Amino acid sequence: MTVVEPLPGVEHHAGDPVFELHRGGKMSIAATASVSNRDDLSLAYTPGVARVCSAIHEDPALAAHYTWVPNTVAVVTDGTAVLGLGDIGPAVAMPVMEGKAVLFKEFGGVDAIPICLDTTDVDEIVETVVRMSPSFGGINLEDIAAPRCFEIEERLKERLNIPVFHDDQHGTAVVTLAALMNALKLTGRAPDTARVVISGAGAAGVAVAKILLAYGIGDLCLLDRTGIVSSSRADISAESTPSKKAIAELTADKTGRTGGLAEALAGADVFIGVSGGTVPEEIVATMAPEAIVFAMANPNPEIHPEVAHQHARVVATGRSDFPNQINNVLAFPGIFRGAFDARANTITEEMKLAAARALADLVGEDLAADYIIPAPFDPRVGPAVAEAVEAAADLRD
Amino acid sequence: MTVVEPLPGVEHHAGDPVFELHRGGKMSIAATASVSNRDDLSLAYTPGVARVCSAIHEDPALAAHYTWVPNTVAVVTDGTAVLGLGDIGPAVAMPVMEGKAVLFKEFGGVDAIPICLDTTDVDEIVETVVRMSPSFGGINLEDIAAPRCFEIEERLKERLNIPVFHDDQHGTAVVTLAALMNALKLTGRAPDTARVVISGAGAAGVAVAKILLAYGIGDLCLLDRTGIVSSSRADISAESTPSKKAIAELTADKTGRTGGLAEALAGADVFIGVSGGTVPEEIVATMAPEAIVFAMANPNPEIHPEVAHQHARVVATGRSDFPNQINNVLAFPGIFRGAFDARANTITEEMKLAAARALADLVGEDLAADYIIPAPFDPRVGPAVAEAVEAAADLRD
Repeated sequence: MTVVEPLPGVEHHAGDPVFELHRGGKMSIAATASVSNRDDLSLAYTPGVARVCSAIHEDPALAAHYTWVPNTVAVVTDGTAVLGLGDIGPAVAMPVMEGKAVLFKEFGGVDAIPICLDTTDVDEIVETVVRMSPSFGGINLEDIAAPRCFEIEERLKERLNIPVFHDDQHGTAVVTLAALMNALKLTGRAPDTARVVISGAGAAGVAVAKILLAYGIGDLCLLDRTGIVSSSRADISAESTPSKKAIAELTADKTGRTGGLAEALAGADVFIGVSGGTVPEEIVATMAPEAIVFAMANPNPEIHPEVAHQHARVVATGRSDFPNQINNVLAFPGIFRGAFDARANTITEEMKLAAARALADLVGEDLAADYIIPAPFDPRVGPAVAEAVEAAADLRD
Repeated sequence: MTVVEPLPGVEHHAGDPVFELHRGGKMSIAATASVSNRDDLSLAYTPGVARVCSAIHEDPALAAHYTWVPNTVAVVTDGTAVLGLGDIGPAVAMPVMEGKAVLFKEFGGVDAIPICLDTTDVDEIVETVVRMSPSFGGINLEDIAAPRCFEIEERLKERLNIPVFHDDQHGTAVVTLAALMNALKLTGRAPDTARVVISGAGAAGVAVAKILLAYGIGDLCLLDRTGIVSSSRADISAESTPSKKAIAELTADKTGRTGGLAEALAGADVFIGVSGGTVPEEIVATMAPEAIVFAMANPNPEIHPEVAHQHARVVATGRSDFPNQINNVLAFPGIFRGAFDARANTITEEMKLAAARALADLVGEDLAADYIIPAPFDPRVGPAVAEAVEAAADLRD
């Protein structure tokens, strides 16, 4: 009675620390109630469990008390936008989803279950998640391609009475805002006069734009592969590209800004890269003095941080081997912990802004060009985010 | 940052050991890979995890090696036939499903995830489970009402390439057969001449009937509330009651037996109750000498075991406080453990028969009227069932 034996033919990975760590997967189920004798069994299972079911049947609110559901989150993917790997399918995505579940547990005490769906149809994904939803206290959408991810999230939020969160959007947005709050402070800028350029108009780019607008950034534009996302472009319309059209109206349309990367970055205060593309050094050199560069593509930043530093005061990346790592793990475990502790049925804009402020505030007096955001293993992070989110939770909605 | 605090207003359950044990639920997720520093994180999550995904993308068989999937089973219910409680709905069913998951882990080392579905539509249940299936190594259907459960199981077996098992049918059938093998041996009966009566023609009754037929029981009939299930009854037809019509043709139709409980039990060797009804003592008194009575309804056996003993040599129940407890936990953890260890893609009749034989054989020389089946906490049970099932697995199908 052993757990899965090594397969024949996979010895070529033996000794590789990444594959050694993944052997047998990265997670398991643990019983928190002991069943080591007949009495235990009669409490945890029949006949005792029937009394618990009967009590919940009379008062459904008791499910929050006597099941694991209120502490669980389904990590749901269709495997279409996995890390930098793209559309690799649901089964291949599992190691990433297990990794996410491990981080939920280790950094937030949240029990996360990876659910990899064998469909990429919006209606089918929504219906499947709705049908599964009595099993979970929250839904974390993960690595679902844009623009489908927007519609899935919106429809699930309408249908469900539990928190629904697309981490690739909102987790990234919260941590980026936290880092930007401190970078603006360090360089003496006010949000309403800062000029910010986001490279990437997918799930992350649009979510970052929205939270920056909510924070009060006054001059903002997004770039996709064609250039600045603006209603003046013939390829952008409410019919063919509704999410780009909507974000254009909130950003570049307001300033009338058009053109490409060079036009966008000339004189800009802040560059935020979530595209995976590259930015030439000569264009970064045209930014405003004391520029702020967040080159967050992973594993290859849009511009090498050492090169960026020659033209910018503050540089952040997504990588752990440079200062100022913008890592979603700073946000999602504490956000769900706080939402669960508050018994919130949704994660509001106020809760996300509170999470960003809490993260930024942890830096405090130590603020410096190479320290605008706490490190992922700073033990204060999870509790601080959770407390801020719990306090901001509006139970009335 | 605490896990769910007590709700106001639930103090009336305080001090009750059943409710105390259920506080916060009975299970949690455990990380088996440590992420306590930056290096760990780079192995378990980005960038390391991308290499594992890439390897699985090239060779999908590697998923069996580097994910938790091959050791996981979804415990899927629609909440329509939960214990003796009936149709209580998916959310209320959760404590039972968690209990099942705990037993899977404790007795079989299997990671089980409760999935309570908010639909009772056959098509929707099938589609939902198929879409979720990349996440799991097996599907255990649980507490789904008959006859819907038969169609769901059949269709999932056709659609999926992983083991699908309805425990209320097949787990019950395996343990009942094991007990019956020993009871027949003790009373000197051969299967082909034994006359067996099953009270109950739902999921469990039909499955018990089928495994007894596969074992070679020669004279078998089932009873529902109306009487012996037979094609001679006007209310039984292929159109209106297809599962009853099919089982009638395999049982009572062969002997021409008709009537009610009194007609069925007069002179019968074996009574197997899975109905939840009652059997009057005066009818049990008409059974053959050295009769065998399995009164398995829980918590109230069809006839009190002490009363039954006045007319029967061997008496078994579903209860832990009498000898010969027929408890599914003797079967399902070892069956899935064995199927997973064999990397079987289905659970065949041969695997179920092997499980029953392994259970019966554990009794060995100690066979007695009050010891026809091992106790649930006999530590030999899980490994013995798993080894027998693994050996019987036919990987060619």
